[in-house]
Amino acid sequence: MNYRIVVSTLGKVLKIEAALMLLPLTVALIYGERSWSAFAVTILLVLIAGFSADLKKPEDRLVREIEGFVIVGCAWILMSAFGALPFVISRQIPSYIDAFFEVVSGFTTTGSSILRDVEVLDNGLLFWRSFTNWIGGMGVLVFMIAVLPLSEGRSIHIMRAESPGPIVGKLVAKMRSNAMILYGIYVSLSVLMTIFLLAGGMPLFDSIVNTFATAGTGGFAIKNQSIAAYNSAYLEGVITVFMLIFSINFNVYYLIITGHFIQGIKSEELRWFLGIVSTAVISITICNLPIYGTVLHSFRYASFQVLTAVSTTGFSTDDFNLWPTFSKCVLVILMFLGASAGSTGGGIKTARIIIMFKAVGREIRRLLHPRSVSVVKLEGKTVDQAVIHGTSVYLIAYMGILTLSILIISINGFDLVTTITSVIACFNNIGPGLGMVGPTGNFADFSDFSKLVLSLDMLIGRLEIFPILMLFSPAVWYRK
Amino acid sequence: MNYRIVVSTLGKVLKIEAALMLLPLTVALIYGERSWSAFAVTILLVLIAGFSADLKKPEDRLVREIEGFVIVGCAWILMSAFGALPFVISRQIPSYIDAFFEVVSGFTTTGSSILRDVEVLDNGLLFWRSFTNWIGGMGVLVFMIAVLPLSEGRSIHIMRAESPGPIVGKLVAKMRSNAMILYGIYVSLSVLMTIFLLAGGMPLFDSIVNTFATAGTGGFAIKNQSIAAYNSAYLEGVITVFMLIFSINFNVYYLIITGHFIQGIKSEELRWFLGIVSTAVISITICNLPIYGTVLHSFRYASFQVLTAVSTTGFSTDDFNLWPTFSKCVLVILMFLGASAGSTGGGIKTARIIIMFKAVGREIRRLLHPRSVSVVKLEGKTVDQAVIHGTSVYLIAYMGILTLSILIISINGFDLVTTITSVIACFNNIGPGLGMVGPTGNFADFSDFSKLVLSLDMLIGRLEIFPILMLFSPAVWYRK
Repeated sequence: MNYRIVVSTLGKVLKIEAALMLLPLTVALIYGERSWSAFAVTILLVLIAGFSADLKKPEDRLVREIEGFVIVGCAWILMSAFGALPFVISRQIPSYIDAFFEVVSGFTTTGSSILRDVEVLDNGLLFWRSFTNWIGGMGVLVFMIAVLPLSEGRSIHIMRAESPGPIVGKLVAKMRSNAMILYGIYVSLSVLMTIFLLAGGMPLFDSIVNTFATAGTGGFAIKNQSIAAYNSAYLEGVITVFMLIFSINFNVYYLIITGHFIQGIKSEELRWFLGIVSTAVISITICNLPIYGTVLHSFRYASFQVLTAVSTTGFSTDDFNLWPTFSKCVLVILMFLGASAGSTGGGIKTARIIIMFKAVGREIRRLLHPRSVSVVKLEGKTVDQAVIHGTSVYLIAYMGILTLSILIISINGFDLVTTITSVIACFNNIGPGLGMVGPTGNFADFSDFSKLVLSLDMLIGRLEIFPILMLFSPAVWYRK
Repeated sequence: MNYRIVVSTLGKVLKIEAALMLLPLTVALIYGERSWSAFAVTILLVLIAGFSADLKKPEDRLVREIEGFVIVGCAWILMSAFGALPFVISRQIPSYIDAFFEVVSGFTTTGSSILRDVEVLDNGLLFWRSFTNWIGGMGVLVFMIAVLPLSEGRSIHIMRAESPGPIVGKLVAKMRSNAMILYGIYVSLSVLMTIFLLAGGMPLFDSIVNTFATAGTGGFAIKNQSIAAYNSAYLEGVITVFMLIFSINFNVYYLIITGHFIQGIKSEELRWFLGIVSTAVISITICNLPIYGTVLHSFRYASFQVLTAVSTTGFSTDDFNLWPTFSKCVLVILMFLGASAGSTGGGIKTARIIIMFKAVGREIRRLLHPRSVSVVKLEGKTVDQAVIHGTSVYLIAYMGILTLSILIISINGFDLVTTITSVIACFNNIGPGLGMVGPTGNFADFSDFSKLVLSLDMLIGRLEIFPILMLFSPAVWYRK
């Protein structure tokens, strides 16, 4: 392994984190909060760590797949480790493990919280907490690629390891400009959303912070009642629409803004995703009708909850624990499916589901016509056998880690629904589960060890298993 | 498709079913029960159907993979459809759907029941009910291959489609003699078990019937309290040991009796399976210690429940709903894993788990050394890429059907644990789930439609997805 390049890149990542922390520091100063000093101390520590790591320039600038994985895995852990400090130093989350869980949950856009009462936090810390959702949504390494002049070879494996979904798609070549385009789309959509929220009468601070949580599909709200606190159909509507927007593959927007409108909206994944979402909204609207009385009222809650589940944002406007079993099952299934590849959402991803679905279809065709050659196509192109294989292995590893985590969490002795859905909620980067960790609950009562395991699950889920799994393989570290 | 050979083979299967029904008929006559006439009428109907189907000898005797699948899929549905009749005609299960569910549950060795009180059934019907467990365990088509002179080409695809697990293994060539060896082992072990039960003071009828339920890993007990009714540590011990014996790949016994003792016990799958079972027993024994007080007492319940879960038998001696969450989670995971390939047990099967586990390991090695060639080995032999692919596709189809079924069953509006575990219990051919369908519950309250869906799930689970899935593909039926 090329240790030098790994350490030096990690140094750059920390320097960027220090720069990003200037924003919550400013917010704390504006509101005259004491927590500004916590940010100042943290920034100093992060800078010291960052500069010492990036002191020696590596001679060998080669970043292979393996270094890409290790950089991304370590970067996310380090960022979370340092990102937790402001909460601990300011004593607003006194336990380091709790703060670490909260920040991992932020960066991975999970949105699970150990806070029983979020409203007691300073505005600066609330800002930082939701800002981690926004940074994590697109990925800090993609940001680094966008702003720093790195070699192409260095960028490609880092970007591949950090971007969600089985295929990077059209955005493969010219890493730096692509990273810039992605962040350009991301920032523009975020600004647009903030304006829409302001227009609905939401305060400026709330608008910005809720935009962070929505854009990253993280779901860190700043009210104990989440979005329900605003009690506004307009605001819920805006958030619903933007949760949909941020769950769509950014390739689609890229194609649209580069003039390939038809090609963009013809995306196979887009059509499947919209099909799944609308089927879910319609069926839940009908099923919940007895609870809400009118179609419009039922539609309002159905569409919000469907989008918050499928985008893995995890906002809540209603306690869906009280919904009929069918509606609950639909939501749970949507949480597994997740958003589109190349979006900020989590879960298994629609593209993977399509590939898997088609692989089964091909197996049936193969049994029917043993001598015929049958291929799996996605977006009109043949999917490489290696991608199908990788997707299958992904699913296997996914199920395996899920099982192991459930076993470990079950030692806490909570009921079965809480145990299983807490792991699913963290692993799929959703946020709330059912039972004790439902929309009105939190993760405060888990043991420290469980919080660490769940933190690891969030990281494994966000980085799609291998970048974190690799860190546990001794062969990675001993390799020359 | 070669319709003639399909229809004629199905005719033969029905004739065998008629012959097998002579046993419960005799039992009913011995006990002087009125239900003997229900069997007599059914046998007559089955014979008429069987002879008319097998009237015209097919000219083309070719059985390809596709015909093998269709024959097996249809045979199991037909056998269940006719097998349900004695219950309906005798009016002891008045609803045909209920009787169909019960018999499918029997043949597929699931052991889920719609009966609130099993003890009111006639002995003849109790015998038939548990006998379906025994027939289904090894498969009626394997039996047909053993007793009827069929061409080799015809046998291989039928046997492949009916035998559980990813690899048929050493028993591929010489179908007929292999089928005879398998049934020879099966019958010998069953006789042995009956003797052991008799030695413990269990009545003859109970011994035979409980042997059927254990050997097929079906779990159709004849007492409302299942095995707990006998309240005997010796009998529980015998059943525990035989559940273990019937969960092991029959290849191991084949090797042992043909003098390859070392090769037999060195089986990789055997070692993994025993490792999983003993780890589970030890950890549950420790975890349940506070409930049972002594190690011996805790071990007794732990070993019985672990074996009943992993072998997917589904007997019960204790309501594990009351166990700690960790123990419950271990049991649920064991239910998914299931027994060994080539045994009578259900679930995903140990061999598949090993292949999947190794496929993930290979993926990590591939990422570490992109240019190296890495293979997956099982039992010291390289596993073909097609088998790995097939295993992955199996898992994908498995998850997909599970999801869809849960969605359909959720319409009943039962709680989430009942909804999800009822599907898992049927699909993995286990029997009881948790909540309302727990060890002390039953499936009586499900809607007729749900019972049909669950019946289908049991068949899909027992025949490992494709033989049943194929029947829904129009291309199968329109094909020349």
